[in-house]
Order: sequence, then structure tokens, then C-alpha cells
Amino acid sequence: MERSSKEIIQENRDYTLFSWSVQSTANPIHMKSAKGVWFWDGDGNKWLDFSSQLININVGHQHPKVLEAIKRQVDELCFAGPSFATEPRGVLGKKLAEVTGLAKSFYTLGGAEANENAMKIARLYTGRNKIITRYRSYHGATMGSMTASGDPRRWPVEPGVPGIVRVFDPYCYRCPFGKTPDSCSRECVSHIEEVIQMEGPHTIAAIMVEGITGSNGLLVPPDDYYPKLRALCDKYGILLIDDEVMSGFGRTGKWLATQHYGIKPDIVTSAKGLTSGYLPLGAVIVSDKIAEWLETHMLWGGLTYSGHPLSCAAAVANLSVYEEEHLFENVEQQGAYLASRLEAMKRKYACVGDVRYKGLFSVLELVRDKATKEPLAPFNGTSPEMAKLAAHLKSKHIYAFLRFNWAFVCPPLVINQEELKYGLDAYEEGLALVDEMLGVAKAAAD
Amino acid sequence: MERSSKEIIQENRDYTLFSWSVQSTANPIHMKSAKGVWFWDGDGNKWLDFSSQLININVGHQHPKVLEAIKRQVDELCFAGPSFATEPRGVLGKKLAEVTGLAKSFYTLGGAEANENAMKIARLYTGRNKIITRYRSYHGATMGSMTASGDPRRWPVEPGVPGIVRVFDPYCYRCPFGKTPDSCSRECVSHIEEVIQMEGPHTIAAIMVEGITGSNGLLVPPDDYYPKLRALCDKYGILLIDDEVMSGFGRTGKWLATQHYGIKPDIVTSAKGLTSGYLPLGAVIVSDKIAEWLETHMLWGGLTYSGHPLSCAAAVANLSVYEEEHLFENVEQQGAYLASRLEAMKRKYACVGDVRYKGLFSVLELVRDKATKEPLAPFNGTSPEMAKLAAHLKSKHIYAFLRFNWAFVCPPLVINQEELKYGLDAYEEGLALVDEMLGVAKAAAD
Ligand SMILES: Cc1ncc(COP(=O)(O)O)c(C=O)c1O
Ligand SMILES: Cc1ncc(COP(=O)(O)O)c(C=O)c1O
Repeated sequence: MERSSKEIIQENRDYTLFSWSVQSTANPIHMKSAKGVWFWDGDGNKWLDFSSQLININVGHQHPKVLEAIKRQVDELCFAGPSFATEPRGVLGKKLAEVTGLAKSFYTLGGAEANENAMKIARLYTGRNKIITRYRSYHGATMGSMTASGDPRRWPVEPGVPGIVRVFDPYCYRCPFGKTPDSCSRECVSHIEEVIQMEGPHTIAAIMVEGITGSNGLLVPPDDYYPKLRALCDKYGILLIDDEVMSGFGRTGKWLATQHYGIKPDIVTSAKGLTSGYLPLGAVIVSDKIAEWLETHMLWGGLTYSGHPLSCAAAVANLSVYEEEHLFENVEQQGAYLASRLEAMKRKYACVGDVRYKGLFSVLELVRDKATKEPLAPFNGTSPEMAKLAAHLKSKHIYAFLRFNWAFVCPPLVINQEELKYGLDAYEEGLALVDEMLGVAKAAAD
Repeated sequence: MERSSKEIIQENRDYTLFSWSVQSTANPIHMKSAKGVWFWDGDGNKWLDFSSQLININVGHQHPKVLEAIKRQVDELCFAGPSFATEPRGVLGKKLAEVTGLAKSFYTLGGAEANENAMKIARLYTGRNKIITRYRSYHGATMGSMTASGDPRRWPVEPGVPGIVRVFDPYCYRCPFGKTPDSCSRECVSHIEEVIQMEGPHTIAAIMVEGITGSNGLLVPPDDYYPKLRALCDKYGILLIDDEVMSGFGRTGKWLATQHYGIKPDIVTSAKGLTSGYLPLGAVIVSDKIAEWLETHMLWGGLTYSGHPLSCAAAVANLSVYEEEHLFENVEQQGAYLASRLEAMKRKYACVGDVRYKGLFSVLELVRDKATKEPLAPFNGTSPEMAKLAAHLKSKHIYAFLRFNWAFVCPPLVINQEELKYGLDAYEEGLALVDEMLGVAKAAAD
């Protein structure tokens, strides 16, 4: 007999813990089935997955090619320890070298440990200890990656690891240096050089940045940001670690977000879009130089499931879907439509302060007032207006990722224009409701 | 056309990094297929897996029930984000509560992040910062877990996180206090109380220990160690975190190694045997009290793949194999045979200083001289004699885990006596070779 959704939800509540939550407030949806950009809950509601779960299910839910590949590998060989060679492990490594232009992959299970190992390798390779990271960033929740993150999620678990130095972000809408992109001197890069001077260039192993910052506001850098940052790294022999966990693997229409800017990092970290979440996998992909160095030096890192055959097979199939189904072209096409819609919203709604996008990686930054740019919700907080928007999207069964005063739009890369329009129309209705609330508040204040 | 093993190995070498290795010395075996306690390499050699890969593939390779369960879940639903309820997630949570006697599970991907989250939860719950761990321990390779480990693998990546305080181990064969188990006063526990006094009881969140220490020498504690440690924790309001990543889930013939000693930890961490490695999964299982506290307090932790439906489904199937196939009874039976063989080896071979075992979790500690107990290889090193033993086992196609002066015997829990005998006979041949080398050396010295 099939069990009821109510029963399943209760069992999940009774026996499992939900991340980043006060458990009594966790209100899980029972996901019963899913297909492409859609999933169904236990009450038969059909949801549009407008954030690709946690911005990871890039090829959409239950893609037949990935399912087939996993099942084939299950019959072939489920597990081999990390010291073994297996076919999917090698095939994936070769593919990752090809698409990133780097040399060799070390496999982890998620983004957090990918970043842990990237920092470790950078420290071993350079013999230096400090890592420069940015305030508006999230690199994962294990101690090393959590400390590297600027995200407020690190506050309650500090102190973290020693050696992390934080710098400011290319957040042009709220430039930390009070500038505008067309008249600034890229203080977002030049201040990093001052920090390097003050910290001692010979003490800094790496600068670690998200390709395009994701959950901390989707910050698309100016076009010359990366060339300048790369030059800075080269000047001081500092490695550039590019965290492409969220921005990588097709999300922006290229394998890596940094490929839009014509530079090559020394180390790339990946997860999420690497398998589209079908199976857990992360990767640290290192340059020729680092790979060469590791030929004669110990890699002081490991985990039981490094190079898991099933995860590698899922990744190989997932990456081939990107190519066979020309997903990057779809990202470009749908991304253009998305951009035009977002720009129109910015013109139309009082509450839309800024819109930022690259491919199908996008956000609306919401404000109380376009002139003062006062956020619609405070940093690390929420507000009745943001709650209103969230409730509206939920009522329309749009699964959306909202945080602080940001409303993200990051659907699976297989989305078509009709589906995208359907979701964006619901966003617009929500923005109209927010404008209404702001208007009433303003009228009351007048 | 099928690709050759040579080609596959070369591709793995060219494009992927091997953990804990100088890459030029990595000499991977190509695992082509596997079944039960056996696997086959690309040259058609049949290997006996005498260490269950990394002491994880407890139900043996390619168990049909686990394969079926994974494939069924692949068709059903591959992925749901960590905020969703899914059927396998709940069913597994309930099962874990039942077998551990604890309340709720937080899911991770491997042992390292399970321990990261256990320490985090302990700190949040107690409001205290320090964690006591033991020198001879391995808890994983992410920053928090690596620092918690006493294992020398942490040396090259120090400094780690602040707040770890290390104590000595119940290593009766080489008692740090110069005692013997029958005449000591359990200084291995009482000295922890002195450390607690010196550190300040109110600053200590938890004592984290491996249920039975695995890769650092397989240290089986005296029977009253855990009751005394539990009492110490209770006296000072310190949580007991039991890392059962290696010793848990049937390895010793019970769900948890600590269940042999009649105590209940506050937090259990698990991985490896939880899915037998068929898919990556770790779990942090917390007591009623902690679960209750988390109802009204934020759990400051998460990861994209927490509660992965495929991993949870694999775990549910894997745990049911333990029960349906009465594996714990097999562990007891084969464990008794293993124990008798190990004790006989200790009597017979000059190089066997000590043997330690619980179920199918066992080790031979090798020495140059039974009287002086001089290790056959130095701490964190190897020796010609250990290399000889390794080479012999390899030549016999016995896949074995040797480290420093320890030779482990940890086969899959489905092994039968004939298979166990086959492997142990090869160990004996190797020990005879070592004795021969020691004899020649001794004769030369005389
Ligand atoms: C940019 C970035 N890096 C790292 C991570 C951590 O990945 P995981 O959740 O797989 O540990 C995330 C997760 O959201 C991320 O967005
Ligand atoms: C006792 C113990 N804890 C934790 C770990 C780390 O687990 P993982 O390799 O899955 O991170 C291990 C791995 O060998 C272990 O033996």
C-alpha cells in the first residue's frame, strides 16, 4: 500500500534534521516525482523548479540519459577505493581537462570539500599559508570552507581556521568604494593589492573567488575584473582559485563563468552542475604546473569516496547532455529573453533596484526606494514584503530561491521560453504586490 | 571496442589525482569487476578483498539487493534538495534511530563532514568551544576533522582549527602510562579528567572518539573504558561523540562498536558501512535531548547533497541486507575463527607482538622483538620487512591494508570460513617470510 505524503513528511520531521533550520519551523514539501523543469508534491501539485533545486539540477530532473548511465554503471561496478583506476574516473578526468583547459582532477563529494582541498593544495604548492577570500561569498560549510566564506552563516561557528584574509567584492550596485563602474579605477581589484602589501605577498598562497558570486547576491563583475585579478596574482606568484561550484558547468552558457573573461585560473573547484546533482560529486581541477609539482610531492588529502565510480559515470553522462543537447546555446537564447524581461521589470517596478544576469544565472535586487537603494530586507534578514513575494510564488507553485533582499531566477538549463515566461509572469505579479505594499506604506507616511 | 586496461590506467594517471600519494609513485590497479569478497583486475587476476576496500564494503561487492534498490530509486527520483521530504530519507532516519537508540539524523556525504557537523552541533548545543580528541585517531581530512585527528596526516596541513585538545589512547599493548590492563587504574580515562580540570570543564563541548580506533592501530579498549568515559562526560556535562565511521554498522558484529560496552553516546557519526560504499553517505545521529534543543535552535550547517535520495535508498537496502542475511551472526562466527587464527599466529611467529580484534575488525601488530616490542616499522614509516609482507600478499592477490607496523584483516562481512582461511594462510606465509628476514638479521648481528 502506498504511504501518504502526510505520513512521509511526518517521518522526515520525526527522524531527520533539516539544514540551516530551526527544526520546528521546517516545513518540507514532499517531492514525489519530477521531470525536466517540473516536480510534483504529494498533493499532486505541479511545481516549476525556478532555482534548479539548490542551483544544481542543470540538465533538469530525471534526464533519461543520466538515469541510463547510472543504471549501467550500477550493473558494471558500484565501488572501487580511491587508489584504484576505473573507467569512468579516467574518462571524466580527461573531459574535465578538456573543458577547463587545466590538467588533472582530484575528486571530492561536494563543493565544500572541493574548496577544502583546493586551499590545501594551494598551501602545499606555494609553501604559503594565507588565503584571500571575499566578504560576499559562500564556499561551503566544513571548517575550512566555512571560514573562507564571508557569508553570515559562518558567524555562529567562529572562530574558524587561521590564515583567511577577506577583501571586498565587485558589487557595482553598492560599490564598497563609493564609485560607479564607468568612472571608477577598479578599486575592487586595486584594494586587494594594498591588502597583499600589508599582509606580505610572500605569505599569500591564493585568492579564492566564486567565478560569479552566487548566493551572496549574484555579483557579475565588470569585464576587466578578472584580467586585472589574474595579473595581480601573476605579479605576486599567488594562485587564483576559481570556485565554479554554482556558476560553472553551463549555468552562464559556458563551462566556467570565468571563461567569459578570457582568463585561466590555477585551480577550479566544481560540484552541483558537474553531475546536476544526480549523484554527489565535487572536483578540484589543477593546472599543468600544479599537476607537475604533485608528481614529486605528496598530495596530503583524501576521502573514502574520492573517484566514486557511480558519481563519475553520472558526471560523464551529465556533461555529454550539455553537448549533445546544445544546452549552452539554449542558455544563450533563453538567457537573452530572461535579460530582456528582467530589464523590463527594473523599469516597471519601484521595488526593483538592480538586475544582474549571465546566462540563466540571475537575480533581482529589491529595494524600498530606487533613489536611496534601501534594501527591501536588511542584510541577513527578511521583511514582510519579501515574505509576501515568497508567499505569492509558493501559491503559484513556483519553487524559487529568495534570500535577504534578493530574488534569484536560476531554472534548469533545459527550460524553454514558454516555461520561463510562465515563471517570470508569476514573479511580476509578486513584484506588483510588493510595489502595492510599498505604495500603501508611503501613502501612510505622507 | 573494449578499451585495454593499460589505456584506462594511463588515462587515470594522466588526468586524475590519487589521494595521499606522490603522483609519480601511484600504481593503480584497474578494477574491472567485483562480486562478494572478490574483485578482478584488468589482467584477469582475481583478488580477495581482505580490507573491504577502505573498510567500507561491508555487504561485499555488487550485492544484488543493493543494486536493485539503487536502480529502483533512480527511476523514481534521483534528487531533491535538502529542504524536501522524500521517502528514503525518512525511512532511513527511522531505521537509524532504531538501531542506534538515538533520535534524529543529519545527513552528510562522508565521514569527514559527519564529524565536522557533529563537532559543530556539540559546540552550538553546549555553548562551549573545546573538543577533546585522542592522539591515535583519524576523523577525516576536512579542516575541522583533520585537526580533530591525531593522525600524522594532519602534520603537513597544520595549523588547523583552534579548540582541539588531545589525550592519550587505551593502547594497552603500549600503555602510555606504563601500566598493564590487569593492574592499572585505567589511567587512559583518569588522565582525561585531569586534562578536563586543567582546560576548564565549562569550556569543553565534547569528547570525540572512534568507537574502536581503526586506522591508527585498531585499539580495542578494556571493557570498562566506555562506562568510565561515559560517567566522566556525565559528571561534567560533556557530550560523548562516537565516531563509528569505520567501527560501526556490523564491522564488530553490532550496529555500533560502543554497543558492546553497554553505553549510549550523545552523538554518533557514520559513513562507510552505512551504505557499504555503494553510494556516498554520512550521518550524524543525535540524542533525544539534542534533537529537542534543535527544535527551537538553528542548525548552522548544511550541504547541497544532504539527504540525497539515491544515497538514502542505498543505505536502507544495505542495512536490510545486514538483517535479512543475518550478517552479525556471520561476523560472530567468522570472527571467532579469525580470533583463533590470530592468537595462533601470535604464538607461532616471532614478529607478531600483539593481535587485536572484535568481530571482523582486526589487526596484527608486528615487532622486531617480542620482548622489547620494537615496532617492525617506525611510527609513520615503513621498513623492508613490512614491504616484504606487502609484496607477498600482493603476489597472492590478497588486497590488504598495511600501515606502519600494523597488518589489518577486515574482510567484507559476508565472507565464509573457506575464504577467510585462504586469506589468513597467505598472511601466515608472509609472516614466515618476515620471521626469516628477522632471523637472518639476528644471526648476522650475533
Ligand atoms: C559557490 C559555492 N561554493 C561551494 C558551495 C558548497 O557546496 P556543497 O553544498 O556541495 O558543499 C556552494 C553551495 O551552495 C556554492 O554555492
Ligand atoms: C574513524 C573514521 N572517521 C572518519 C573517517 C573519514 O571518512 P571519509 O573518508 O568518508 O571522509 C574515516 C575514514 O577512514 C575513519 O576511519
